[in-house]
Amino acid sequence: MPELHGPVLVIGAGLLGTSVALACRAAGLEVFLADTASEHLRTASGLGAGVVHRGEPVQLVVVAVPPDHLGELVAQALADTDAVVTDVGSIKSQPLAEVRAAAPDDVRRYVGSHPMAGSERSGPLAATATLFQGRPWAIAVHDQADDNAVAVVRALVETCGGVPLVLTPEEHDAAVARTSHLPHLMASLVAGRLAHAPEGHLAMSGQGVRDVTRIAASDPRLWQQIISANSTAVLALIEEVQGRLGAFRDAIESGERVALGELLSEGVAGTRAIPGKHGGPPRPTSSLYVAVPDHPGELARLFADAGEIGVNIEDIHIDHDPGRPVGLVELVVAVERSDHLAGALGERGWDVHR
Amino acid sequence: MPELHGPVLVIGAGLLGTSVALACRAAGLEVFLADTASEHLRTASGLGAGVVHRGEPVQLVVVAVPPDHLGELVAQALADTDAVVTDVGSIKSQPLAEVRAAAPDDVRRYVGSHPMAGSERSGPLAATATLFQGRPWAIAVHDQADDNAVAVVRALVETCGGVPLVLTPEEHDAAVARTSHLPHLMASLVAGRLAHAPEGHLAMSGQGVRDVTRIAASDPRLWQQIISANSTAVLALIEEVQGRLGAFRDAIESGERVALGELLSEGVAGTRAIPGKHGGPPRPTSSLYVAVPDHPGELARLFADAGEIGVNIEDIHIDHDPGRPVGLVELVVAVERSDHLAGALGERGWDVHR
Repeated sequence: MPELHGPVLVIGAGLLGTSVALACRAAGLEVFLADTASEHLRTASGLGAGVVHRGEPVQLVVVAVPPDHLGELVAQALADTDAVVTDVGSIKSQPLAEVRAAAPDDVRRYVGSHPMAGSERSGPLAATATLFQGRPWAIAVHDQADDNAVAVVRALVETCGGVPLVLTPEEHDAAVARTSHLPHLMASLVAGRLAHAPEGHLAMSGQGVRDVTRIAASDPRLWQQIISANSTAVLALIEEVQGRLGAFRDAIESGERVALGELLSEGVAGTRAIPGKHGGPPRPTSSLYVAVPDHPGELARLFADAGEIGVNIEDIHIDHDPGRPVGLVELVVAVERSDHLAGALGERGWDVHR
Repeated sequence: MPELHGPVLVIGAGLLGTSVALACRAAGLEVFLADTASEHLRTASGLGAGVVHRGEPVQLVVVAVPPDHLGELVAQALADTDAVVTDVGSIKSQPLAEVRAAAPDDVRRYVGSHPMAGSERSGPLAATATLFQGRPWAIAVHDQADDNAVAVVRALVETCGGVPLVLTPEEHDAAVARTSHLPHLMASLVAGRLAHAPEGHLAMSGQGVRDVTRIAASDPRLWQQIISANSTAVLALIEEVQGRLGAFRDAIESGERVALGELLSEGVAGTRAIPGKHGGPPRPTSSLYVAVPDHPGELARLFADAGEIGVNIEDIHIDHDPGRPVGLVELVVAVERSDHLAGALGERGWDVHR
């Protein structure tokens, strides 16, 4: 398998591009940078991510620009260099189609990729060499791709600390439609109903609706590009959801409890299908609720106690209900450690319940 | 305003009933308990929540049973006693209609209520006197309600430390349809699509889909009761969502970027409409991402450092992406404290980025 020996050219010095550049620099590779925004370029090179590209030959080009410009800039990079070209965009089929049309003879040197990281932040200042550490990173291998191109892109993923997942571009787009784009649209639909809520009704908001709508706060300009570029896969799922929503409506209208229960049970099964931490099957967890005064230092005291007790916290949620002078902190722990933690925290004076 | 002097009879010694009983006991009131499950009754009285009811006269009855039995048991309590009667169920119009039909002369003594607490847990062992501290607690005042009954229920809310929100039963049900029942159905729809995902696709799941689907893991039997009992308000919102989902589909199918952007922007506006912590307008917050080794004690060290730095953590999310050997912890802090915290954590050797 060919080494990634560099140099690497990163086009687009935003969060992802600069993070890739920093990870390559950390691995000792020579990195060049290009960006139409000279401010981003200055910031990224100031961070040590590489030097401004002046046409030097490279082994690999990484295109890290918004979805609308992916196809065009990949094709351009194939025309300008003899290098392997990849990108880190969140959709894969449409840019590939554009590249096939614009550069049919060079498309073999292009293998798109997509790291599962960083979508909520932006700009080179947010970048870090460790952004991709342990993250799934899809490599979208198409039928005309060179073995060498695939191997170089895989080496990039490994250099950045990512976990390679090989998929076809179509599989990739179907997967993110289901795990990212549809959830985003649905979160946006739920949140949109809050924008029109009668005054006073939102005082009843609990943690549930906050969780469901959180991702709907992301930049609509970026998301309209992402969803438009993955329209086929997203539309297939919307159609499925329309059918299911109609079934929910029918079950509620007709009072068919069993049908309603089956629809809700399908949701329960779905939550269990999401892989657990570290990729294994989800481990059974149990939640403890601890009342914590809402000022600096109290959370530290709680986690210090949990650390001394020796129980690993799998997840945390802080309850934001309005008006609450103490926060309710939910600690998610392995089910077999839950009794021990509850007892030991109680002995240390914490108000703990299940 | 009449004091709540007791005795109080709590019917249903589950999480909510036992917590109400414990809060009343903590305030020095005499509390009686009733439950068809003798095990719950024994557990609750073992916890000091009160003694088994043998027909003693009471000032207030609190009915804390699943939605399906609310109306019947409230009517029964009105018939059996001269007391004020309330309940703590999550829907208000349908039980009221049942009580009006079954006990038209006594309905003036009934004022339903609904504390925003505890729905994800169950059973008396999960109960605590502080469950309602600072939580919104709706008082659903209907047009035939006695002033005395309203005042006694308000006194109960205050005794339990809740924050009274007075609404009509119809307003209440419309509010929870929007802030709780619709989000639940939509989370369930998104999760349901994961249950049928092709193998391998779910490896792409990030924190977003986990947040959106979290509440869909709740007990389908309870939720089919809740949603069935609030069918009118839920159906009105489903119709609204069907229209909006159709608009999303049209915008995506026709490639109308502006329309898609407007729909997504409506979602952004909705996330901003949710009241902030402590009931005020949402304070602008900013997120820092810290890489934390995934073993006991490391979170404690992070929060100890944050506590010493003196910055209050508003919220926390732990990133669960599979395969990641270090956890990525998102700290949400007031925007004006974010630079200080990032700098100070960096000085202490933490790998922090935005």
